[in-house]
Amino acid sequence: MANRVVDVKSYTEYLWMNTKKRKEIVPISDAVFAAVEKSGVKEGFCLVSAMHITASVFVNDYEAGLWADIMEWSEKIAPENPHYLHHHTGESNADAHLKRLLLGHQVILPITNGKPDLGPWEQVFYGEFDGQRKKRVIIKIIGE
Amino acid sequence: MANRVVDVKSYTEYLWMNTKKRKEIVPISDAVFAAVEKSGVKEGFCLVSAMHITASVFVNDYEAGLWADIMEWSEKIAPENPHYLHHHTGESNADAHLKRLLLGHQVILPITNGKPDLGPWEQVFYGEFDGQRKKRVIIKIIGE
Amino acid sequence: MANRVVDVKSYTEYLWMNTKKRKEIVPISDAVFAAVEKSGVKEGFCLVSAMHITASVFVNDYEAGLWADIMEWSEKIAPENPHYLHHHTGESNADAHLKRLLLGHQVILPITNGKPDLGPWEQVFYGEFDGQRKKRVIIKIIGE
Repeated sequence: MANRVVDVKSYTEYLWMNTKKRKEIVPISDAVFAAVEKSGVKEGFCLVSAMHITASVFVNDYEAGLWADIMEWSEKIAPENPHYLHHHTGESNADAHLKRLLLGHQVILPITNGKPDLGPWEQVFYGEFDGQRKKRVIIKIIGE
Repeated sequence: MANRVVDVKSYTEYLWMNTKKRKEIVPISDAVFAAVEKSGVKEGFCLVSAMHITASVFVNDYEAGLWADIMEWSEKIAPENPHYLHHHTGESNADAHLKRLLLGHQVILPITNGKPDLGPWEQVFYGEFDGQRKKRVIIKIIGE
Repeated sequence: MANRVVDVKSYTEYLWMNTKKRKEIVPISDAVFAAVEKSGVKEGFCLVSAMHITASVFVNDYEAGLWADIMEWSEKIAPENPHYLHHHTGESNADAHLKRLLLGHQVILPITNGKPDLGPWEQVFYGEFDGQRKKRVIIKIIGE
């Protein structure tokens, strides 16, 4: 049976990121969980989306060795390379645009009973591929 | 013109998966369609998301040859390899984490007139890359 | 504080695509922004999803050099190849199915204050990998 939702709400928050390294994976689960609690939403969806096109948001394991593996893998699959056509514009970050496509730039967390309804090992991460400057991640929640 | 939604509902269901093989693609459209019908939602979104970080959910073709192609391709792009740093923790499944990132771990199905509003060939699949044990997929529906 | 949503709406629109070339990236932000305006939704989610399984929808940069880089990259990672098992069915487009998986087939745009809440460079694109025929993209909006 479906539950009737009687009091629909929306909630929006922006996380500011500014990584020390050009490429870095940053855990953001705590901020996302706090936003869900602040929203007061009990049943709904929480979108977490990188607003800059050289960054990523994904859900995977909280394990630093795996983060290094992900970085090395994305470098192998979408390497830095001076010959991208995008660089004719004066940019040098085409690889970062491709890494965002490879890893994905957003996730939806289901919210059940007031909490993100994640599996036992699921954690939310921000993947930066052209950092050392301010960028935003939007957290948008809709639900009961 | 937008339709007014007068009676918002939420519905949550968990599919238990336990594949016989370590790597396997499993069609799950029937279960997802049944959940949408049970929800009673006429206009909304249906999230289907793998809750374990070595599994995937995607929408593609119901064709066994293509499933084998997807498995072979994902093995080529994110191969099994004893040298991943993640394996220093005692794990041996870093490739499965990368395959989840490659293929994606969730999809949203739009619901229109009470049914998943998919294209003629779109079907939902679970991609397992470290199976032979119990794992869950969440189906979460929000809408009218 | 979460905002109370008092008047929930849904809105659905289909974009018809028919590219001149077999493989082509097409900007669709204008159509998506127009749909959000037509919906009247002020706070919500806008799903943009390719309904054919050999096409993609993604959010990245409005820059033609980068589009060519994305096409060349996806060809390198998921190349045309006569030996895919999918081709035993008479099809010849397995690479296009894989490219959809690589780039993703859908995005969710958050809607805030009646507009897609995107970063400064975020634009929406349709990626066609087996075109020269009519295909659809669904735009589905739910919110206040």
